[in-house]
Amino acid sequence: MTKFADSLQEISISKRSLLSIGLDPDPDKMPISDVFEFCKLIIDHTEVFTAAYKPNMGFFEAFGLEGLKSLEKVIDHIKSNYPDVLIIGDAKRGDIAPTSSKYAYAMFEIWDFDAVTVNAFSGFDSIEPFLKYTDRGVFVWCKSSNPDAYQLQDLVIKGTADRKIFQVIAEYCVSWNNEGNLGLVVGATYPEELKIVRDIVGELPILVPGIGSQSGDLEASVRAGLGRKNHGLLVSSSRGIIYASSDLNNFGPAAANASSILREDINNILEDVGRSFI
Amino acid sequence: MTKFADSLQEISISKRSLLSIGLDPDPDKMPISDVFEFCKLIIDHTEVFTAAYKPNMGFFEAFGLEGLKSLEKVIDHIKSNYPDVLIIGDAKRGDIAPTSSKYAYAMFEIWDFDAVTVNAFSGFDSIEPFLKYTDRGVFVWCKSSNPDAYQLQDLVIKGTADRKIFQVIAEYCVSWNNEGNLGLVVGATYPEELKIVRDIVGELPILVPGIGSQSGDLEASVRAGLGRKNHGLLVSSSRGIIYASSDLNNFGPAAANASSILREDINNILEDVGRSFI
Repeated sequence: MTKFADSLQEISISKRSLLSIGLDPDPDKMPISDVFEFCKLIIDHTEVFTAAYKPNMGFFEAFGLEGLKSLEKVIDHIKSNYPDVLIIGDAKRGDIAPTSSKYAYAMFEIWDFDAVTVNAFSGFDSIEPFLKYTDRGVFVWCKSSNPDAYQLQDLVIKGTADRKIFQVIAEYCVSWNNEGNLGLVVGATYPEELKIVRDIVGELPILVPGIGSQSGDLEASVRAGLGRKNHGLLVSSSRGIIYASSDLNNFGPAAANASSILREDINNILEDVGRSFI
Repeated sequence: MTKFADSLQEISISKRSLLSIGLDPDPDKMPISDVFEFCKLIIDHTEVFTAAYKPNMGFFEAFGLEGLKSLEKVIDHIKSNYPDVLIIGDAKRGDIAPTSSKYAYAMFEIWDFDAVTVNAFSGFDSIEPFLKYTDRGVFVWCKSSNPDAYQLQDLVIKGTADRKIFQVIAEYCVSWNNEGNLGLVVGATYPEELKIVRDIVGELPILVPGIGSQSGDLEASVRAGLGRKNHGLLVSSSRGIIYASSDLNNFGPAAANASSILREDINNILEDVGRSFI
């Protein structure tokens, strides 16, 4: 097992959780205006239930430099107080190698994320600079959760027994995993495709966003996405947890409640399929 | 003509230039350490020769918050002193719609770029938030300039008369161009593919990076990429201009010289094909 897959499995077992909580600070939805204070309160109320936080770079960048300063404080707060929980920089970065090298440096050396999401549109040399950080996780965006995902990702490739682009990406991911630190992102809105991807990638970790607000089917996703040996799965919810309440005095406990329920829902499914944490 | 295509054509004619200069500040290559001062000196020496600057977000992000503060100053410097030159945020952003909305806000409202590069891997709804800024340009990454570009972009789609993914993207771009502000990015390293894309997209602007350091063929690229009515083309060079000299006392004039030569080389090709600026 690799260091990143190790970390993921260890934190999942110790927290009895496959949950990832997406941090998407949105000025139109936050009950308080300070980005760091909002995230801090969410984190302090939910940390016991989650294996990972997934700050979404776009939401922080939309606050300008102040948002990125807040992200710096958020990461520092998590690392200082909850050193075992994983922090996944949701950035979907990807460019030609010299630029990807800079993005990898930014994500892993500046922000110090434990893992990132990347976009593999430009092939192996565009994500290799991320994979070279062998102790970090690199989740390749394979099948996205949005309605128009099919436009490119479901195109059928000629001469491949009718495999679609997302399947080809999954196959590439297996061959690109030279450092043992590669995972995939597959949206919860497409559990059938998640099953197909799991069958292709074997034990590679899969990050499944889109549970909750995007109406992803939790039970189908967990059943389809579980690895055979390790759990190898992170189920990520953002809005359903962090905006569970818009009440200034209650949004923290509401987030705690929502994350506790989601963790338990996942764990009940694990029990049903005989994969409970020992 | 749209406002962005208008701006592009106007600046091209007034500057007699199809040149874009990529700003990729790299601590290993800059003759001076201050990012803003380096970019400022490059800009002040080259502005007369170029239609656009293309700050590459990855290179600025790799300097952390200080790099982004420098970018803020670079953009302010260009807008204050050279208000007509276009500023293209080379970011290759793209995510599901709620996140793309945030990236679009960051790129256009925070950074105030005139145009951005985006990644359309997740289909129309993932780039629509950018396109809604109808007075800004949105360049969809269609065919990248790197060696492994073929791995996904050249896969042949079944049932499409053997069209490759990059051709399908080009076709999508035509249908997605509801606001008249969409362009494409096609690497100079693949002039044959650039010709194919130009034939598909008609008058849409094309940004062609990879001239110079990536050994893109200038003449083939200009001939293949020109629009029929407007020029509709930006030829972008980064390292070949901004690192033309590593001499502390000469890198500005060397960049001026390199950009002047490249502009003239492009303009000589335009003359050869009867498309000189009037």
